Amino acid sequence: MGASGYIGGEALRLLLGHPCVEVVAATSGSNAGRPVTSILPHLARLTDLDFSADIPPEQAAELDALFMALPHGGAIERVPRILAAAGNGGPRGEGPVVFDMSGDFRVKDPATFRHFYKLEQTAPEWARAAAYGLTEWNRDAIRETRLVACPGCFPTGALLALTPLARAGLLKGPVVVDSKTGSSGSGKEPGEGTHHPTRSQDFRAYGLFSHRHKPEIAQELDKWLPSGTSASLTFTPHSAPMVRGIFTTAYAFPGRAVSTAELQEIYEQAYGHEYFVRLVDTPRVAVVTHSNFCDLNATTDGEGTIIVTSAIDNLVKGGAGQAVQNMNVAFDLPEQTGLTFPGTIP
Amino acid sequence: MGASGYIGGEALRLLLGHPCVEVVAATSGSNAGRPVTSILPHLARLTDLDFSADIPPEQAAELDALFMALPHGGAIERVPRILAAAGNGGPRGEGPVVFDMSGDFRVKDPATFRHFYKLEQTAPEWARAAAYGLTEWNRDAIRETRLVACPGCFPTGALLALTPLARAGLLKGPVVVDSKTGSSGSGKEPGEGTHHPTRSQDFRAYGLFSHRHKPEIAQELDKWLPSGTSASLTFTPHSAPMVRGIFTTAYAFPGRAVSTAELQEIYEQAYGHEYFVRLVDTPRVAVVTHSNFCDLNATTDGEGTIIVTSAIDNLVKGGAGQAVQNMNVAFDLPEQTGLTFPGTIP
Amino acid sequence: MGASGYIGGEALRLLLGHPCVEVVAATSGSNAGRPVTSILPHLARLTDLDFSADIPPEQAAELDALFMALPHGGAIERVPRILAAAGNGGPRGEGPVVFDMSGDFRVKDPATFRHFYKLEQTAPEWARAAAYGLTEWNRDAIRETRLVACPGCFPTGALLALTPLARAGLLKGPVVVDSKTGSSGSGKEPGEGTHHPTRSQDFRAYGLFSHRHKPEIAQELDKWLPSGTSASLTFTPHSAPMVRGIFTTAYAFPGRAVSTAELQEIYEQAYGHEYFVRLVDTPRVAVVTHSNFCDLNATTDGEGTIIVTSAIDNLVKGGAGQAVQNMNVAFDLPEQTGLTFPGTIP
Amino acid sequence: MGASGYIGGEALRLLLGHPCVEVVAATSGSNAGRPVTSILPHLARLTDLDFSADIPPEQAAELDALFMALPHGGAIERVPRILAAAGNGGPRGEGPVVFDMSGDFRVKDPATFRHFYKLEQTAPEWARAAAYGLTEWNRDAIRETRLVACPGCFPTGALLALTPLARAGLLKGPVVVDSKTGSSGSGKEPGEGTHHPTRSQDFRAYGLFSHRHKPEIAQELDKWLPSGTSASLTFTPHSAPMVRGIFTTAYAFPGRAVSTAELQEIYEQAYGHEYFVRLVDTPRVAVVTHSNFCDLNATTDGEGTIIVTSAIDNLVKGGAGQAVQNMNVAFDLPEQTGLTFPGTIP
Repeated sequence: MGASGYIGGEALRLLLGHPCVEVVAATSGSNAGRPVTSILPHLARLTDLDFSADIPPEQAAELDALFMALPHGGAIERVPRILAAAGNGGPRGEGPVVFDMSGDFRVKDPATFRHFYKLEQTAPEWARAAAYGLTEWNRDAIRETRLVACPGCFPTGALLALTPLARAGLLKGPVVVDSKTGSSGSGKEPGEGTHHPTRSQDFRAYGLFSHRHKPEIAQELDKWLPSGTSASLTFTPHSAPMVRGIFTTAYAFPGRAVSTAELQEIYEQAYGHEYFVRLVDTPRVAVVTHSNFCDLNATTDGEGTIIVTSAIDNLVKGGAGQAVQNMNVAFDLPEQTGLTFPGTIP
Repeated sequence: MGASGYIGGEALRLLLGHPCVEVVAATSGSNAGRPVTSILPHLARLTDLDFSADIPPEQAAELDALFMALPHGGAIERVPRILAAAGNGGPRGEGPVVFDMSGDFRVKDPATFRHFYKLEQTAPEWARAAAYGLTEWNRDAIRETRLVACPGCFPTGALLALTPLARAGLLKGPVVVDSKTGSSGSGKEPGEGTHHPTRSQDFRAYGLFSHRHKPEIAQELDKWLPSGTSASLTFTPHSAPMVRGIFTTAYAFPGRAVSTAELQEIYEQAYGHEYFVRLVDTPRVAVVTHSNFCDLNATTDGEGTIIVTSAIDNLVKGGAGQAVQNMNVAFDLPEQTGLTFPGTIP
Repeated sequence: MGASGYIGGEALRLLLGHPCVEVVAATSGSNAGRPVTSILPHLARLTDLDFSADIPPEQAAELDALFMALPHGGAIERVPRILAAAGNGGPRGEGPVVFDMSGDFRVKDPATFRHFYKLEQTAPEWARAAAYGLTEWNRDAIRETRLVACPGCFPTGALLALTPLARAGLLKGPVVVDSKTGSSGSGKEPGEGTHHPTRSQDFRAYGLFSHRHKPEIAQELDKWLPSGTSASLTFTPHSAPMVRGIFTTAYAFPGRAVSTAELQEIYEQAYGHEYFVRLVDTPRVAVVTHSNFCDLNATTDGEGTIIVTSAIDNLVKGGAGQAVQNMNVAFDLPEQTGLTFPGTIP
Repeated sequence: MGASGYIGGEALRLLLGHPCVEVVAATSGSNAGRPVTSILPHLARLTDLDFSADIPPEQAAELDALFMALPHGGAIERVPRILAAAGNGGPRGEGPVVFDMSGDFRVKDPATFRHFYKLEQTAPEWARAAAYGLTEWNRDAIRETRLVACPGCFPTGALLALTPLARAGLLKGPVVVDSKTGSSGSGKEPGEGTHHPTRSQDFRAYGLFSHRHKPEIAQELDKWLPSGTSASLTFTPHSAPMVRGIFTTAYAFPGRAVSTAELQEIYEQAYGHEYFVRLVDTPRVAVVTHSNFCDLNATTDGEGTIIVTSAIDNLVKGGAGQAVQNMNVAFDLPEQTGLTFPGTIP
């Protein structure tokens, strides 16, 4: 659903190439009845589908999996209706598994959701029950749910970088997350901030102290902190003049010296066995572009400062790719199925 | 007039730095009443003007010079009204000199104008009388007129390349003009073709056999051909993934062998004494970016094929810069006044 | 062989993802002994190979297929030695099938080769016998050979555009091929022409009348022309400020009016059944980037001018992807095996 | 001196357009004897100079001003020799005023200099005596010296952002400077990090905890702190995929709530009267590109976190432009002379 946008189109691209998936429908309200390839010309030869306007709940209830990439607010009422049509009173019963890539079910607290999304959370019990789809840290929850709230692009980069520190009790002081995104993160609709003549050699910050991805990052970090405490988080997104990718530079000041060996051990334990998180010397956006990999590095000055950098593709690991990864987990497929393509750096 | 768009804003930028000019007003219909620098932030410290909605004809008639960068059609009725208010029945009398940077007065033939611009030419005598502002080839006309129709960006690059061949009688066979433009040529309004995520690594042709700059190129070349004959011109514009610049590759097949010496002599004669046209081995967009220079090269295979390449900045030599150059000519200032800044290649 | 460069690395990327291929060795003279992923970090998780310095002929003779991406000249003596070691006196016997992606065996005429490559063709009989690997037009030859000379990037774009016209007898007048390439076409070695500060907003032509891909284009077109005649070809490559892709604008003047219907029929017949060539309204580099597709359009003014535009990824359809496509043909696999990934336009 | 590199070439560009300057010589060791415009083609029509190999001290001593952009180490011995030739035992006497744009005299402490530059400071008394050329904060020193050590590009962006906080006693907690630079900062020599195919869509951090601009930033901030104390500074430079510009995001945690009004007052006092520092809502690299302006914003969450962002052109305000600004100060010219050109955003 919502397959004509950037995240939805990328999900379609990945699912069409997935060996265990048959794509039976793709919706786009504004393009209903038109061939998918008239809007997504790069998919010519790969699909003959026309866009549907929508999928009625009863029909959606018959599917195995449903990927939703509607504008924020579009899933809040649709998801409960679909799962209800499947005879399902909550997220752990019958019916399709829904992988929602919008922000509708990411934030657990309705007041926070209202504040940052300017929308009413009319399905608060679904938001509470949804599994947060940061695959590497929530596999058990993802396996047991009918609703996966796939993370935002910035939170994916930030949380992969910082969760190991949170778990190790090293997020006591100020935490700075300085993130840089490519222009595809702004979506398909042309606008001033993505106008090529100005964006292509520009760099700017935006949403200081107020970006809607901040509460999502805080919520997921706080899970690991002593109950009742919160990370002192500052999150600043920036517009960088590339198309794809998010680069995150995270700073932590744990209040004590941390040695290189200790830091390495923390990250090795967290990610040494992970396929999609690669511990490297120098994470680079170009190396992970168009792939589901997250390249990551943690460095300490041996005194009291830790820098963690991570690079992801915002539409793949930070979007549709991670949704497919979650599907692989939910359906007990090998986790990398359909996702082993590498980055496209020449 | 029309100072908030790309061409108008560039004219404002150049005029604010021109030692003999005082800018007394800048209009923008949609931004009337707002400070110029709220829309053009790079001009902060250089002007305290607010945008006016318009300049009434009587008031405009009092000015020395008027630069117009309105959307196509905006000058057709305004210009006659303004010059009439100056007590002027035609383009060679009293009142301000108008430098129009739109397409309104470039095309002499009303039927051709209607076909390509989908607009009625209601001031055909003004179109006929306007000087065509390709400075290097029309100085006399520019000196004697009240209305300069400044060339389009593609025609500037194409005509500087080909006029010497036309004059030398070498445009007898097919003539191919293959042009490549930066995204700023599409103007300030965001759209699909200038959306950063797709434009920044894209390349495409558009307007095959049908671009509105073709009749303008043909009209100006034909002036040099035997009466009643026309160049057999094919013009193909392309969208290139840079911001500024037009690169033109022109091919001529004169039907006889032309030696390197002969060709060199033709171009030396045409441009050897010109300040803004530089004969070079390898014209490059980056070298002329943000400047009023046109770098140009003519090469022959010594048999029957000639290739002429030229590089300009589309908004400067192909737009506002050439308009200022024309103003310098019209007001008997040294032609390079206010225009000697070089390209900004690092 | 030569797997650390752009074409070789891309071949490795594609072959690692090919369901019928096991990569047993990857060579790089300058990186021998180092892990492949230390040079090609995007391939981490996909291969544990170390680069070998070389593969001795006897060992190479045991392989099923050999992809060579050595600098020009590197294959001339290696290939005969390897196939001789396989007990093979010519390209149609035992031993591995060699897919050479250099220019070593593309040009049939030794004098032409010497002139353009500044190298001696010491294996002229192999150059003569090699199949020219433009898959769509040479499948029979590719099936029957041990040596496929895979086309250069410019020739792939130009020949897919023009071969249908050559076959239809419409290349009688002047033929202009105006091509625009991304920076990856210059290879991995940093240089002045690919230095980011100047290349990223630049556009220039180079190699006027003298680029080494011209004889290759001419040779393959002339096959379709009446014996003893040659296309009157002008080929001009340009450096565009994108990373990937070649956009080709080809102009033909057949000397008679050609209708849209006739032109459409010619291209429909040529490519209507092809998987990798898609006839579209507007070929765009961004749509085919990172894919093996060629998007193509032919348009006529209904009088005597035809414009054919094509867009490919220079390293995939114009390089390693086409080599893999040739392998699929040579080994009787479905031609699109391992190559169905679409472009990566967001 | 050193006029063929990016900083030196930019100085030459600016000085050729400066109304009070006559450029009498431009040196380039590797291009001696060649026309300046053969290396800097954008300067054609603006200068007829040939590069000199060097300027002997006796000759240099006769000049009014000397701009040096030699590789690090190139000025250490030259400067004392030149000023000695001018009969000058120290930086406050006779002879030319030297504007050194290298790192040779920026760092006061020889041990720190040795550690970060891997060079011996053989003229420590000159390093101590040199004025640090951050114009806005050191005009008095600049007026009284013969040697101005012009700041590095990163320090210019960082110090303009943070000096007001240092002066206000608000740099008590951790200070994070997260900087993003364009590729021109790496200079003219092509290399892996500035190779267009990989740089143009890449983003990466480098020099964590170890970049040579860190001690320079710390040194200049510490001047404002209580004697014996030091800012707890973390500096992380990043490579962004643009050509020009440095964007700095600085974080301060002063240990107490700071109101928006207080913060605004601090910055208004610091920069309200400055021509080249503009307090804006959203600093953007594109807005200041090719200009000498620094756009700057300071924002607080009203609790204990302050974010200061600044945007400059790395080669102008962060290089040659600031050197010219310093010259204007040193020679009592209006400070903006020759530097009033705005950014080149279309």
